[in-house]
Amino acid sequence: MADHLLHSFLSAIRASTDNEIIANPKSALDAKWIIYGLVLSAVGFTLSMLIGKPLLAWLRAKKIGKRILADGPQSHKVKSGTPTMGGLMIILSILIVAFFIMYITGSKAMLLPIGILISCGLLGAVDDLLSLVGRDQLPPPTESETAFQRRWRRLLQQRGLTARFKMSWLVAISLVAALILHLPLDLQKVYVPFIQYPIPLGWIYVPIAIILISGFSNAVNLTDGLDTLAGLTCAIAFFAYAVIGFLQGQQYVVLMGFTSAGACLGFLWYNAYPAQVFMGDTGSLTLGALLAVLAFQTNQWLLLPLIGGVFVVETISVILQVGYFKWTRHRTGEGKRLFKMSPLHNHFELSGWSENQITMRFTLLGMVFAMVGVALALL
Amino acid sequence: MADHLLHSFLSAIRASTDNEIIANPKSALDAKWIIYGLVLSAVGFTLSMLIGKPLLAWLRAKKIGKRILADGPQSHKVKSGTPTMGGLMIILSILIVAFFIMYITGSKAMLLPIGILISCGLLGAVDDLLSLVGRDQLPPPTESETAFQRRWRRLLQQRGLTARFKMSWLVAISLVAALILHLPLDLQKVYVPFIQYPIPLGWIYVPIAIILISGFSNAVNLTDGLDTLAGLTCAIAFFAYAVIGFLQGQQYVVLMGFTSAGACLGFLWYNAYPAQVFMGDTGSLTLGALLAVLAFQTNQWLLLPLIGGVFVVETISVILQVGYFKWTRHRTGEGKRLFKMSPLHNHFELSGWSENQITMRFTLLGMVFAMVGVALALL
Repeated sequence: MADHLLHSFLSAIRASTDNEIIANPKSALDAKWIIYGLVLSAVGFTLSMLIGKPLLAWLRAKKIGKRILADGPQSHKVKSGTPTMGGLMIILSILIVAFFIMYITGSKAMLLPIGILISCGLLGAVDDLLSLVGRDQLPPPTESETAFQRRWRRLLQQRGLTARFKMSWLVAISLVAALILHLPLDLQKVYVPFIQYPIPLGWIYVPIAIILISGFSNAVNLTDGLDTLAGLTCAIAFFAYAVIGFLQGQQYVVLMGFTSAGACLGFLWYNAYPAQVFMGDTGSLTLGALLAVLAFQTNQWLLLPLIGGVFVVETISVILQVGYFKWTRHRTGEGKRLFKMSPLHNHFELSGWSENQITMRFTLLGMVFAMVGVALALL
Repeated sequence: MADHLLHSFLSAIRASTDNEIIANPKSALDAKWIIYGLVLSAVGFTLSMLIGKPLLAWLRAKKIGKRILADGPQSHKVKSGTPTMGGLMIILSILIVAFFIMYITGSKAMLLPIGILISCGLLGAVDDLLSLVGRDQLPPPTESETAFQRRWRRLLQQRGLTARFKMSWLVAISLVAALILHLPLDLQKVYVPFIQYPIPLGWIYVPIAIILISGFSNAVNLTDGLDTLAGLTCAIAFFAYAVIGFLQGQQYVVLMGFTSAGACLGFLWYNAYPAQVFMGDTGSLTLGALLAVLAFQTNQWLLLPLIGGVFVVETISVILQVGYFKWTRHRTGEGKRLFKMSPLHNHFELSGWSENQITMRFTLLGMVFAMVGVALALL
């Protein structure tokens, strides 16, 4: 019986050629795809857990510990030195499954998510690694320093990549992803709730995709400030898009969504408060971009700001905080703040909620957002 | 459009007469039922949150605070005085939705879950309330005490109902529920994974139902020892059975499962560590029994010990601990322990895991159990 299932699983995956990426008008898949998805979710969970143990030992041995920003809440100081780059276990788990599916099907459809995982993962890893190199450990500038050496020294002195550098690369990656979505995959439509057929957008699709992919990458990055928070809210959003993928007949989205959700859950085993490891930019930049790409593959990306509502709210809180500060400083000469601290989770922490209460309550809201989002996707 | 949806929601609910409880051989419902379920889940969440605020104020005013057992881990002592009976917000939310559905459909199918909610809720509430009455506050026994007075004084002195008293009532409630399932609802079958048609069991169905309903009521009760743990694992199990109900064409299970899961999530807003309120026996006894009843309505109750795997593991840890202690005391004169403390979550807490790590990890395992369970339900 198990043999029979494995066989039907493999042949179902094999049978799904490239055309499954083109969104069908809302025809649900056979219920068997839920089995495949759930099994892959359990596989992703197990892989993350298995990779986690040696990865954690390696990160500790290499002293890849997080330097906690001096301007965060006081209570976060104790987290200094906790290993970071735990997102590697999520990325590796998803990659293993993605390569397996690509090998079985012979289809190139998985290349886009694989490309996102690798490119964003590398960008995040460089940022995480650079943020470990203390300014003090660098040799002082010499007279004979070349321009190239000086640029590198300055880069390293910033303790992490500059926001501009990170953003430029993210936009570049998003541009490539958007072009792949638009040209070879021929996507350019959007589903709007209550309208039964997707609306074609033409070339405007590309800039929208760039904004949402790079935006969500950043938004998850901002959200990743409390143990469990980013990992759990990402898992929920992936589950939501896996269900949407199922209801819309998007086989690859079902497989990738469930796998990614499971991989995030496996990571949480080590990330539960008090965290043994953080996902780092390696994890957060990658998960945000991957989520957005899956959303675009379903044509239901209009719901992404709702399903990823927690990320959006966190990002808006930062924008409002910075904008209001600059505006009041411009007007009155003295900058004022809207929140005690942004992103929003820091505001609540300083307002007396425990770290775990914030995580739990943000997650609960994330679940409700995701449920409403899936419901709207069906309308 | 929203009008149209509401209309179709109401007429769909109206159209579902009593026969939907008889399990169809695995024919999924129309995707619209997922919308109804998700909306009701959000409604359950909102109702719980709305009821929670005044309930919490009332519990605090009435000083309905939890007396923490002296034989629990030391770290739990600080929780003494936290309000209990928070399960009321879950029960009331589900009841409101259940009565609404019954009112709309005119069907009596909701009477079984409503009966469980009220009877188990009352039993748990009596237990919670009695456990508040301190022995010291009772008048001393007098010479002229009648047998009836003595019995009540002894009951109150026990700080809560005796295990035997509680169990007798639970078995009685389960017996009634089992008979309702078997006779008017004509259920007597079980789905076994890999077998496409349900297997009829005849009268043996009744004792099995009694054991599973009262057993799960107790199991959730045992699991309810850490903030968030019981509420979150219950929510997951309810979601799992809601999905199974959807895939099997069980409309009421979809509605009740999603509502119950949402209501549990709303409760967690107040129950996140550090908890502002506990669900108490009011909540845990009721949720366990309700979960089992929903499982029986799908005929997929064979998977209940897997989908509710966390509850089962916790219960087995208690049975093993007590059994091993008695056995070794009988053999060697000295009782030995298998775990540092049972239920299992206490063992891990004494082993150095933080309360939140245990909750998170047990929950993650609960999710994987639930996913595997849903997958098996489809086979």
